[in-house]
Amino acid sequence: MTTPTDWAPLCDFAQALADIARPIILDYFGRAPQAARKGDNTPVTAADRDSEQVMRGLIEQRFPGHGIYGEECGIKEGTSSYLWLLDPIDGTKSFITGKPLFGTLIALLHDGVPVIGVVDTPALSRRWVGCVGQATVEGASECRVSACTELASAKLASTSIDMFAGAALNGYQRLSERVWFRTFGGDCFVYAMLASGHLDLVVEAGLAPYDYLSMVPVIEGAGGVITDWSGAPLGLNSDGKVIAAGSRELHRQVVEILAG
Amino acid sequence: MTTPTDWAPLCDFAQALADIARPIILDYFGRAPQAARKGDNTPVTAADRDSEQVMRGLIEQRFPGHGIYGEECGIKEGTSSYLWLLDPIDGTKSFITGKPLFGTLIALLHDGVPVIGVVDTPALSRRWVGCVGQATVEGASECRVSACTELASAKLASTSIDMFAGAALNGYQRLSERVWFRTFGGDCFVYAMLASGHLDLVVEAGLAPYDYLSMVPVIEGAGGVITDWSGAPLGLNSDGKVIAAGSRELHRQVVEILAG
Repeated sequence: MTTPTDWAPLCDFAQALADIARPIILDYFGRAPQAARKGDNTPVTAADRDSEQVMRGLIEQRFPGHGIYGEECGIKEGTSSYLWLLDPIDGTKSFITGKPLFGTLIALLHDGVPVIGVVDTPALSRRWVGCVGQATVEGASECRVSACTELASAKLASTSIDMFAGAALNGYQRLSERVWFRTFGGDCFVYAMLASGHLDLVVEAGLAPYDYLSMVPVIEGAGGVITDWSGAPLGLNSDGKVIAAGSRELHRQVVEILAG
Repeated sequence: MTTPTDWAPLCDFAQALADIARPIILDYFGRAPQAARKGDNTPVTAADRDSEQVMRGLIEQRFPGHGIYGEECGIKEGTSSYLWLLDPIDGTKSFITGKPLFGTLIALLHDGVPVIGVVDTPALSRRWVGCVGQATVEGASECRVSACTELASAKLASTSIDMFAGAALNGYQRLSERVWFRTFGGDCFVYAMLASGHLDLVVEAGLAPYDYLSMVPVIEGAGGVITDWSGAPLGLNSDGKVIAAGSRELHRQVVEILAG
């Protein structure tokens, strides 16, 4: 299996997946909030499932040999070196509480390496696209991480403190004391804000491969660094703990602090 | 001093304040993120100050006898029973990390009672307006809180766990264990989502009068309840701890749990 010299067609296709998912997701998002009830077959479940199914259908039609790993509908083994990862709605709690920061995450892995990543936020009509060897873009604009290299000046984001427990929580609290400030909330949107230079650090835990692997091309293509908590590259078998940093200097310090 | 029978002109004026603040705030929000540095005269400081000054100018021109209490420029004593409260950018950390949930908060107090409240989110182009005796509106739509009365089904939001300390933190943690789930992040936006039925509870602490008093007409006009943690009405001298609930049943239970 050779590596493509031009990723543009696959990059366009990844965006076509986001294009067909977006209206389905927005349709459910706009429905009466009373529909988002505990224990029911909730709109977020339906939106997740329906949008994943149309994305899977498009992949199967165009690239029948590609593997697919989606949050809702599981794994379809492929016959090629390509694997698509799909998380139709990252940020379920945001979605069902009306917060527009949830997003659709799409990643393409080639021989296990994330080569394309899409973060699409339907309710904000914004999209970030990362592709190996290219600058990450939001629309027509190239994204660039911040120049921050000092922890004491760094802005840290995490979706919730409830992601962390035990030693991970202790490490996260140690880190929080060293940064300028920490903020909560935001789901995938905070990774996009790191790529765009608004945040300097994102530290999370408990993520699934379809959450974090789409972030790799987006963050790296904007000049940032993204690894697991030990500093190792993210892959399908990572433990779900993620550090994304705007600079190698910040990243190195965060790995040390989290290790204790 | 008589009470107006028609609040519409003052309600329109409150929205005119939000109208002139919005482009100023958006202009600073759109600037290069590198400008948002620690310790500098940051864009958020300038956006806060500039937008508060134009709002104050408009009030002084139209209602020279009205008092003004703004986050940035302090208190101007009035000669009438009216006091305007202004928080140009609620959600400073959201603003400087690119998150569009920050908002402009405007309240009008009459004899110490909040009679008009505006929550304007410039980056989302959305606005909620509450006025005593009327239904809260977002644009042309009337807002209505959720029908949730069971804690175990309630969606709870707070901007950050770092708002709470000591006994307040203990109470907040007790409450968190009783609800369906809790989410973080969102600033003033979560009160708007409560008014619109997407959230069932907002519990916060450490707020200033120009934060929480604008929420009173917005929440009450949507059928909700908003008080301090003891269940007492919010006023200028409240202690900054707030419970907003979609129903009296939820509110009563939250007051009990937070009291320990």
